[in-house]
Amino acid sequence: MARIGYDIGGTNLAAGVLDDNNQLIAKTSLPFPRGKGIAAVIETCRTLFDSLLETASLSAEEITGVGVAVPGSVDPEKGVVIDAHNLGFHHTPLSALLEDALQKPIALINDADAAALAEHGVGSLSGTQTSVMITIGTGIGGGVILNGRLFRGGRGNGTEPGHMVLHNGGRHCTCGVDGCAETYCSATRLAKDGSALGYIGAKEVIDAAKAGNAQACELFRMFIDDLGSYLASIINLLDPERIAVGGGVCGAGEFLLNPLRKDAERKCFFETCPEIVIATAGNDAGIIGACLIAEK
Amino acid sequence: MARIGYDIGGTNLAAGVLDDNNQLIAKTSLPFPRGKGIAAVIETCRTLFDSLLETASLSAEEITGVGVAVPGSVDPEKGVVIDAHNLGFHHTPLSALLEDALQKPIALINDADAAALAEHGVGSLSGTQTSVMITIGTGIGGGVILNGRLFRGGRGNGTEPGHMVLHNGGRHCTCGVDGCAETYCSATRLAKDGSALGYIGAKEVIDAAKAGNAQACELFRMFIDDLGSYLASIINLLDPERIAVGGGVCGAGEFLLNPLRKDAERKCFFETCPEIVIATAGNDAGIIGACLIAEK
Repeated sequence: MARIGYDIGGTNLAAGVLDDNNQLIAKTSLPFPRGKGIAAVIETCRTLFDSLLETASLSAEEITGVGVAVPGSVDPEKGVVIDAHNLGFHHTPLSALLEDALQKPIALINDADAAALAEHGVGSLSGTQTSVMITIGTGIGGGVILNGRLFRGGRGNGTEPGHMVLHNGGRHCTCGVDGCAETYCSATRLAKDGSALGYIGAKEVIDAAKAGNAQACELFRMFIDDLGSYLASIINLLDPERIAVGGGVCGAGEFLLNPLRKDAERKCFFETCPEIVIATAGNDAGIIGACLIAEK
Repeated sequence: MARIGYDIGGTNLAAGVLDDNNQLIAKTSLPFPRGKGIAAVIETCRTLFDSLLETASLSAEEITGVGVAVPGSVDPEKGVVIDAHNLGFHHTPLSALLEDALQKPIALINDADAAALAEHGVGSLSGTQTSVMITIGTGIGGGVILNGRLFRGGRGNGTEPGHMVLHNGGRHCTCGVDGCAETYCSATRLAKDGSALGYIGAKEVIDAAKAGNAQACELFRMFIDDLGSYLASIINLLDPERIAVGGGVCGAGEFLLNPLRKDAERKCFFETCPEIVIATAGNDAGIIGACLIAEK
């Protein structure tokens, strides 16, 4: 038996099959049918479903359930996407529509939560009871594992760690608040500060810092100082066993991790600092996490 | 049957008796025997124990267990106070010493955790599964309720919400980090900023703001802006059902609560903001929380 997971993004709609050993045995994707309405999205999901069965040599009967990760807020009980701006979904009854098309039980999850679940299930957070996944991208996404399970927020709204305040009154965040962690710890911050020096994108800034450019080093140092304080805030509140960081900038590996660990360790209130590691589920994290919430 | 709880502070050593209906039926206190060594502390606890039994007309046999709240870090499993600077306790095997003196099972708890437990057991956080208690005093203390139980940290170190970073690189905190919430949201902050205007203590600043003094109003407005962002950080990470705030400044009641709720509501990422209420267990919270962890 196996499960299918979708990771619906504003650019790509990816899907994959997870077997009973939590191995991703097939994956595929199609462009997200932007602006073509929900029926086109369901049709794309249907096409990917058939394609995956063929690739994995499975019959529809062998799929026990389907999970769907979306970049936005979901009501998992009702199977409704409350708000996924990039997809144009607002109070969309996605579970009912997909269940109808695929004839399988559908489970919904926020994409950052899916990434955390993937790291916990098959990646860098395996075996932890209390841990946190932070994805550093255009914004900051994240998920929290408590008591060995994904924490979906005390009121079911999920977690929005990117909107913890790191510099109260500071840079303006898209959410309307000034000083959110997202405006200081995202790749966008590095890219924005770097553009003033002529760099294009976060990677160019990091590469220049690696090459020893003094101005790029200073930008990177400030970024680490902010990211370290941000992780320390989470550590001092939750005392997690481990924190995984993911996203493009983590391609920098030890060049990022080494100063980050030192910075967070200095700011951690407890005698010892939790482990800080780089996420391992990578680009497939959304698909894997979606599969992991699907009915088994 | 009943339980006894101690709240050991650097000034007073308070104790009380909780009956099976979680009613505090007796309480008393003695000065903390500062600088006289651990034997004097144990002796003081013994004296309070006998005094409480007499006041509550109970025999020693009717006491099922004893809880002890201390202002510092504890290892509840080993019964050791790791570090309670104000008491002069460092790696002190308090449980074993008290068990010897009182012949009762002893349970240890951090005082901020005890306050959260008291609010959850008999106060403003009753009935919640996920909630947070923040005590605004000289510093910021706090406790987190998850799944209807006190959360003692993912690694057992407890929670230190006062050392979440609110203004990275800002005011210097006693913990060594610059910009902790404690340096912006404590009564000490109001007192410190107020002293430049000639006010003595946080209460005088608040009273002057209430009376309409423009400078005091501005200090209070900045304090609310910081406290609101701080609560929003906790809300956006944990999505709690309710947050209780306690400590002396909460004596200001609605004058504090009303702008604080508006500010946190504006900064909350979710559609609705959790309830923000004033803690009700008051000065007895430490004693009550200590009783609540005692063996029943």
